Amino acid sequence: MLDRVNDRPSAGRPGGRAELGILGAGQLARMDLEAAIALDLDVLVLAGGAGDAAVRAGARARVGDHRELAVLEAFASEVDVVTFEFEGVDPAHLAALERAGHRLVPSAAAKLYAQDKLHQRRALAAAGFPVPPFAHARTMIDVLGFVAAHGWPVVMKAPRGGYDGRGVLVAGTEAEAAAYLAGLPGGALLEPALAIECELAVQVARTSDGRMRTYPVVETIQRDAMLRELVCPAEISADHALQACELARGIVAHVGATGIAAVELFVAPEGLLVNELALRPHNSGHHTIEATVTSQFEQHLRAALDWPLGETRLRAPAAVTVNVIGPLDGSDPRSRLSEALAVPGAHVHLYGKDPRPGRKLGHVTALGRDRASARTTAWRAARILEGTT
Amino acid sequence: MLDRVNDRPSAGRPGGRAELGILGAGQLARMDLEAAIALDLDVLVLAGGAGDAAVRAGARARVGDHRELAVLEAFASEVDVVTFEFEGVDPAHLAALERAGHRLVPSAAAKLYAQDKLHQRRALAAAGFPVPPFAHARTMIDVLGFVAAHGWPVVMKAPRGGYDGRGVLVAGTEAEAAAYLAGLPGGALLEPALAIECELAVQVARTSDGRMRTYPVVETIQRDAMLRELVCPAEISADHALQACELARGIVAHVGATGIAAVELFVAPEGLLVNELALRPHNSGHHTIEATVTSQFEQHLRAALDWPLGETRLRAPAAVTVNVIGPLDGSDPRSRLSEALAVPGAHVHLYGKDPRPGRKLGHVTALGRDRASARTTAWRAARILEGTT
Repeated sequence: MLDRVNDRPSAGRPGGRAELGILGAGQLARMDLEAAIALDLDVLVLAGGAGDAAVRAGARARVGDHRELAVLEAFASEVDVVTFEFEGVDPAHLAALERAGHRLVPSAAAKLYAQDKLHQRRALAAAGFPVPPFAHARTMIDVLGFVAAHGWPVVMKAPRGGYDGRGVLVAGTEAEAAAYLAGLPGGALLEPALAIECELAVQVARTSDGRMRTYPVVETIQRDAMLRELVCPAEISADHALQACELARGIVAHVGATGIAAVELFVAPEGLLVNELALRPHNSGHHTIEATVTSQFEQHLRAALDWPLGETRLRAPAAVTVNVIGPLDGSDPRSRLSEALAVPGAHVHLYGKDPRPGRKLGHVTALGRDRASARTTAWRAARILEGTT
Repeated sequence: MLDRVNDRPSAGRPGGRAELGILGAGQLARMDLEAAIALDLDVLVLAGGAGDAAVRAGARARVGDHRELAVLEAFASEVDVVTFEFEGVDPAHLAALERAGHRLVPSAAAKLYAQDKLHQRRALAAAGFPVPPFAHARTMIDVLGFVAAHGWPVVMKAPRGGYDGRGVLVAGTEAEAAAYLAGLPGGALLEPALAIECELAVQVARTSDGRMRTYPVVETIQRDAMLRELVCPAEISADHALQACELARGIVAHVGATGIAAVELFVAPEGLLVNELALRPHNSGHHTIEATVTSQFEQHLRAALDWPLGETRLRAPAAVTVNVIGPLDGSDPRSRLSEALAVPGAHVHLYGKDPRPGRKLGHVTALGRDRASARTTAWRAARILEGTT
């Protein structure tokens, strides 16, 4: 039913089913695949096309549209466990897969926390976790009521479907707010513009029997609403770091997440506030490939199979990862790879994606004695790849 | 002409040729592939069958018999650079490929040092490198002459085609020697049984313009004539370590090797002696995946393309790698993978090969504060995989 790419003799598992199926075949699935090769795990990916990053790296693939339930059902029937590299799968489809007996990592109920921002805010607030002030606006009366309490500008988010800043408007006037709200049939999630000191992320892996492993806290630096750089460990007090880890573990356990999760946090004057959850490998954990004993990708595979989780400690005092973004001139960082490899200590990862301005095409990680030296190395190689030196 | 496996849209390189072609598709090509994915290099492998380790991991492959020149020619015409994961390709075929304009890494002339033990001994001895006493025996008169000088037993080696101890006989009597010699039309390489203190290996990468990088010296421990364990850094004096590195660099430069090379050395009462050369990634460098900044596999790709070489320093005080050998009961280490992953700090690599007693099926690497702790961890996981705990 689905087109097959990179098909080959399977490892001869009973029933011929793959151990793990990944919905999505971009760079996250590609890095899952790298971890799977070392462990000889049998992975199948659902790709949108034969040119997807994971497929180009050799992943056994089925090609189909993940918005169609029939496609998801056919794919799920070929694997033991279904997991994800993105959030944007219809929650109703996921519930249908579970009713049909397929095992999802994370479950449909947990995944909803990463898919529906309004659900996340309501459920976490109800459970006592610190979230920013928020409201659900269906009409401009709701918006103006929220503004009366918190002032302009107001941050308006589409509850579903957004990532990397898409679906988010910082509205400065009533007219802007009204125009945006008119395009959101289900209404908008409203938040005040917070006075954020910095943003953090914490990776937590969890198995279905509740075992967990937490990674050292990362500081993330966004540019154009997209992760640009991450620094590990975050330059925060030990007390803050402990709080962030405890908060992330508490949320992951409360949500009942399985696999790897990234909990994104704001450091605000009032303390730590939950930003978003990603229930899958996440850009804020790319440094773990080199920087920690077990990468987030290997950890995700272990957790998805309910296997022993690996150690998460750092192997160097500091690590920095810088994303490689497609430059405005449309040139391909791949063409400057050999120059970037001349930077001592730079670990270059390219995703095999066609270059487009603003697209994440790879990343560079550097380890160092301190954050400054790691940052210098990672940026040097990233700038070479982006052609901005 | 050749069967295609895992074929897929190429990265769109001019002429559609892959950057690198690897002759062979076993675990070494599989680990080359892992490094190639991160760098988005376009690799094609020549496999003996669709079930080969690298093909199972998703390598784009052509299936054919590397003993046929026509197969090699067809394969070489699809790639910019031909490299190797083994030694056993007919030297005459390699010379023919070069005459036809194909670029080999290493060259046919360099590769001969790894393919023909007699050539290696003669050429290195002539250049003043320390090799064990040796002779070329065509008849039993030659053997008895050598024994008169060095005594029994005599080590008899087939000059070509041996690896992992195959093609080597330690002959204790004239009858044994005669029987073995009768089966070697080209004669045997003779060596005395050396009083070896330990065996070392040094990885050296070299580009065609003569740039080199040397890895920290490794001690290798053999069992049943197969590498069983490696310890890095080798427990030898700083002076010995320096000598070993200098010797390895000198040999690699003299040979004109390109790509990664492993120089295997004996520590004998008379000093360091050259054992063998492997002009390809080698089992004695598997620890580099986790233990050094740049793995031998990534380094091989960089060197083969004449790109900048990566740093080779250790990222931990000590590293130990233990091979996972197919157990006598024929059971598959894969079935015990989840148990092995419970060992903290054990990096498990399985090659996706069908289990057979005595076959190398994977390896485990552990880093540690010292050799003893790394050794304990690596052996614990390896024993679990082998089912001997």
